[in-house]
Amino acid sequence: MDPLLAAGRKVLAEQPFSVLLGAELLEFSPGHAVLAVALKPELKQQYGFAHGGVLSYLADNALTYAGGSALGGHGIVTSEFKINYLRPAVGERLVARADALYTGRSQSVCRCDIFAVEGGQERLCATAQGTIARLASPAGE
Amino acid sequence: MDPLLAAGRKVLAEQPFSVLLGAELLEFSPGHAVLAVALKPELKQQYGFAHGGVLSYLADNALTYAGGSALGGHGIVTSEFKINYLRPAVGERLVARADALYTGRSQSVCRCDIFAVEGGQERLCATAQGTIARLASPAGE
Amino acid sequence: MDPLLAAGRKVLAEQPFSVLLGAELLEFSPGHAVLAVALKPELKQQYGFAHGGVLSYLADNALTYAGGSALGGHGIVTSEFKINYLRPAVGERLVARADALYTGRSQSVCRCDIFAVEGGQERLCATAQGTIARLASPAGE
Amino acid sequence: MDPLLAAGRKVLAEQPFSVLLGAELLEFSPGHAVLAVALKPELKQQYGFAHGGVLSYLADNALTYAGGSALGGHGIVTSEFKINYLRPAVGERLVARADALYTGRSQSVCRCDIFAVEGGQERLCATAQGTIARLASPAGE
Repeated sequence: MDPLLAAGRKVLAEQPFSVLLGAELLEFSPGHAVLAVALKPELKQQYGFAHGGVLSYLADNALTYAGGSALGGHGIVTSEFKINYLRPAVGERLVARADALYTGRSQSVCRCDIFAVEGGQERLCATAQGTIARLASPAGE
Repeated sequence: MDPLLAAGRKVLAEQPFSVLLGAELLEFSPGHAVLAVALKPELKQQYGFAHGGVLSYLADNALTYAGGSALGGHGIVTSEFKINYLRPAVGERLVARADALYTGRSQSVCRCDIFAVEGGQERLCATAQGTIARLASPAGE
Repeated sequence: MDPLLAAGRKVLAEQPFSVLLGAELLEFSPGHAVLAVALKPELKQQYGFAHGGVLSYLADNALTYAGGSALGGHGIVTSEFKINYLRPAVGERLVARADALYTGRSQSVCRCDIFAVEGGQERLCATAQGTIARLASPAGE
Repeated sequence: MDPLLAAGRKVLAEQPFSVLLGAELLEFSPGHAVLAVALKPELKQQYGFAHGGVLSYLADNALTYAGGSALGGHGIVTSEFKINYLRPAVGERLVARADALYTGRSQSVCRCDIFAVEGGQERLCATAQGTIARLASPAGE
């Protein structure tokens, strides 16, 4: 397996919350990540759709993988993101695709589209934009 | 118990994802909601802090309670929100306080502050702003 | 000239603030708009870059054209947007390209990339994401 | 006059775009700024309301003053912000009040409320949340 993908999966396995949700890292390269979850019943809200919090988890984590790897990976924090919900997310699986749009010395601005997969068909159900930042090094201040 | 709070707790109990996370609705009145989770190990990321996705879940859900109740409650969707992460969230408990800032005929714009509670002390660890919308009624179009 | 582009330019000419900034509508079709300004001295800040407020004006207006036309155009409001500033905007001209990503019955979610053009070369300097909403009709409530 | 307010006004006078809009800095202290414009005709859109781009300018600049002063002022950039439009902005004057909510070593997260003043009465017409960042020092990387 690609060493970056292996390293990314190792980190995911060390995140208890990602394990609780059953997240899988499908693709991972510098500035790019694809994260997925099976839409099991406990990830839903009262109408049977994926809970918005599951979509925002996917956005948060996929953006962090994309931006963190674009920045080179150590001392990385998710600074902020914004998410628009587009459609109820129904189906077997949710897939979040994130890409770095711009990466500078101290931040990477990334986008993430989240798709619901039902019967092999993907439908865009949310879109996010956010900032991953490199922590200022103590010596630098 | 206040009927609105009781109704809000009933909805929360019908959200499998909120049950999975152990969310509790502490306060609920029109345009106001307080949602909390105990920071159990499975809600954390690899460094022992609350996962960003837990904070974004709290923002999403507390904003929806605040805005949905401000709008009167039926045919409500969470349109979008933005979250800034401020500090690592450590402690025993996370508490999200959301309030409607402005409510019109078709949308409510709300804010949510999320605090980590450690040893009885609250520290602000994230802040969010978002829009809860009333679905357009078919007859209205 | 294309009737939609002509109509869009007529609206722009009726916006005193757009006239003040010297904005031009270069392209306009349902769900798509390209808006530009020449980077004249009075649009700058103290370091000689385009002022952030000029970039946010372009985002606001290009998103509104893209989303408003996607929604069919009457009773449209800009609900919200988010902008990330990526690089100092220097050059002769700023060009904002906006596209509707998703359009439903009551809202259109759009993205906008803003480029600075210097010596014929375009550089992405800001990116935005926002919601254009159709006002609820009185009869619909 | 307070030296910080005087310094802030000097910077504003050096921003050609702020001069074009007629912006005034009414209050300025670490982590706090109040910025205003008279709602002259050239700041409006086609319906006679303040153009959204004027509101977003005020948000951008007021957030930058609040966050920049909270961070101590040198090497500051506006990283991103989000704005929700609440009501049409009509009246004689727009006033933007911004405050730092959290300030760390490398960023300050701020909020800004924008009011339209008509006949002495203030009405909230937009609200924004954003990040002001300290540029990473070259030695720090």
